[in-house]
Amino acid sequence: MMFWELFMQQAVQPVVADSFSALAWRDNALRLLDQRLLPASEVYVDCTDAAQVAAAIRDMLVRGAPAIGIAGAYGIALQARFIGQSDDWSGALAESFALLEAARPTAVNLSWALKLMRDRLGRLAPDADVPARLLEAARSIHQSDHEANLTMGKLGMQLIRKHHKTPQNLLTHCNTGALATGGYGTALGVIRAAHEAGLVDTVFIDETRPWLQGSRLTAWEMQREGISACVHVDAAAGHLMKTREITWVIVGADRIAANGDVINKIGTYALSILAMHHGLRFMVVAPSSSIDMALENADDVIIEERSANELLMLGDQSVDTGVPAFNPVFDVTPADLVDAIVTEKGVIERPDAKKLADLMSHRHLH
Amino acid sequence: MMFWELFMQQAVQPVVADSFSALAWRDNALRLLDQRLLPASEVYVDCTDAAQVAAAIRDMLVRGAPAIGIAGAYGIALQARFIGQSDDWSGALAESFALLEAARPTAVNLSWALKLMRDRLGRLAPDADVPARLLEAARSIHQSDHEANLTMGKLGMQLIRKHHKTPQNLLTHCNTGALATGGYGTALGVIRAAHEAGLVDTVFIDETRPWLQGSRLTAWEMQREGISACVHVDAAAGHLMKTREITWVIVGADRIAANGDVINKIGTYALSILAMHHGLRFMVVAPSSSIDMALENADDVIIEERSANELLMLGDQSVDTGVPAFNPVFDVTPADLVDAIVTEKGVIERPDAKKLADLMSHRHLH
Repeated sequence: MMFWELFMQQAVQPVVADSFSALAWRDNALRLLDQRLLPASEVYVDCTDAAQVAAAIRDMLVRGAPAIGIAGAYGIALQARFIGQSDDWSGALAESFALLEAARPTAVNLSWALKLMRDRLGRLAPDADVPARLLEAARSIHQSDHEANLTMGKLGMQLIRKHHKTPQNLLTHCNTGALATGGYGTALGVIRAAHEAGLVDTVFIDETRPWLQGSRLTAWEMQREGISACVHVDAAAGHLMKTREITWVIVGADRIAANGDVINKIGTYALSILAMHHGLRFMVVAPSSSIDMALENADDVIIEERSANELLMLGDQSVDTGVPAFNPVFDVTPADLVDAIVTEKGVIERPDAKKLADLMSHRHLH
Repeated sequence: MMFWELFMQQAVQPVVADSFSALAWRDNALRLLDQRLLPASEVYVDCTDAAQVAAAIRDMLVRGAPAIGIAGAYGIALQARFIGQSDDWSGALAESFALLEAARPTAVNLSWALKLMRDRLGRLAPDADVPARLLEAARSIHQSDHEANLTMGKLGMQLIRKHHKTPQNLLTHCNTGALATGGYGTALGVIRAAHEAGLVDTVFIDETRPWLQGSRLTAWEMQREGISACVHVDAAAGHLMKTREITWVIVGADRIAANGDVINKIGTYALSILAMHHGLRFMVVAPSSSIDMALENADDVIIEERSANELLMLGDQSVDTGVPAFNPVFDVTPADLVDAIVTEKGVIERPDAKKLADLMSHRHLH
């Protein structure tokens, strides 16, 4: 039995993530909070078919590896409702699967969620109400992600408490909160849980150029939660580690290779080197759906690049001089610079291939 | 004899820096290129008294440690012209000296240049044409800086050539070019000279948040020079060092302590750690006027902070969530992370207090 079927046997609970939802099922549509407009405005957009969801992922209306996976699953469910009836559901949905799969190449959660949807479709009885079952599957993936985040939050908080009993200064990068996930957050979930446990003094937030997920989104979430925080330019991280008694760097992951190499937002790799230099601990928090056991290591992963305009436009203002801009979205942090990987299945300290294989072999228990 | 007096004995040459000038004496005014508007528009502003110059420094219309020093000197010369006649020039100019001195606290070049002007004033004959002599002094400081840059460019280029005979990939931060100096540039002067010597493949430019001196100004200069370059977000520097065969990081300095500690644009410290981790060479290029022999080391230097708005406004768009922003302008790179300091007086490899003292004691030779 697939783990998400456990939830499907129960009545599916409405997903009440936080005071806001990055994504929610409302009025027969996937309602997305347009994260490009935060913090200036809180605008929700309804998607009613797979193409709209794919566009929302591609245009980064919704972002964050787990949230992208959940949105992709809802995209299939929406498309099935849009089609209504079919004698060949696999054929009818093939184009939508391909479209969603191609929307963002790096987040393995997206292909993972789409595989769950494809598996579910493959095992439905001939007379099943396909749109209803696929919607249940998508909601189950959403709910599972939220619960995984709560578990990771607790595990990560316990890891901090293992080393520190008093409030700590933490540093984080990008946004890994309720906005990036099915609710609560991965790295930010750990920070939330640590805050609740009295272990957080101040959260130092990399603004995270070019998209400013840190100063726009993470700061927005911290403000709503009343967690003491401060934003700074990415280039100040080393200076802060030296001068502000930071003890942990806590980040998410878009994909983790079987040996523990971490693919995450551009800048993560540099943070891991700076953390090592200053003797800080470096924690990566991601659901097991971000672990790609088919990827031996991340040496040869092709890093997604986005438009130069993301660097060269500031609001309406262009800073284009004619010199090209190189805009890689992710980088690779080698496993040996990672102190701990926190998943909902457990914590791996000093990750390597054997420890990850052990962790992932427990999949059937969940 | 002060070294700048050598120039004053000759007819002062007009300063023809480049195809543009960050600062120039034109029509009895200091004409500044408003660097806040680049690359979108090339607007020149004329200053006619010290208060206007101080405001231009404070508001970063003109920036870069050497350029600030030169502008400060012209500010005194302008104020003397504005006053016209006085029986007590020291008293008449005291307020202007104080105003200019306070305009930017970190760049030691500013107080260095103002000290030269004060010394010059102190040694003028009672019947001297004070405004004319002070203008000569300011122009001489300007001219000397330009010539120092040409010397540093050559010395830095030779240092690169000592290690590499083929075109290299270089990485630089902020703007240290003709815009930041009396012409040609410090770190960018070395890059120019290396380019002329056939030693440059591509210049990777940190965009340098929050002011984007890299993507706005350095890229603009590289484009005008036809030097192959590419801009990237600051957080990508580590990733680039790993993946793009960069061999040198070349930066400027706002101030260098007597032990070789370097105070420079925020992010420089992190670059020095990343360079060490990747086995790249780290070169600091600055005129000897940036060396503060009165500062034993930079451990306790107070780092200038600027407005949070510099992080939280993008063009007209606010990303203010209510979370405070910490905006330090500089950081400290300890001497032991610096491979070489290049000045117009010579090159110091693996800098320490003794080597800097030796270098600076040769002052009388120049």
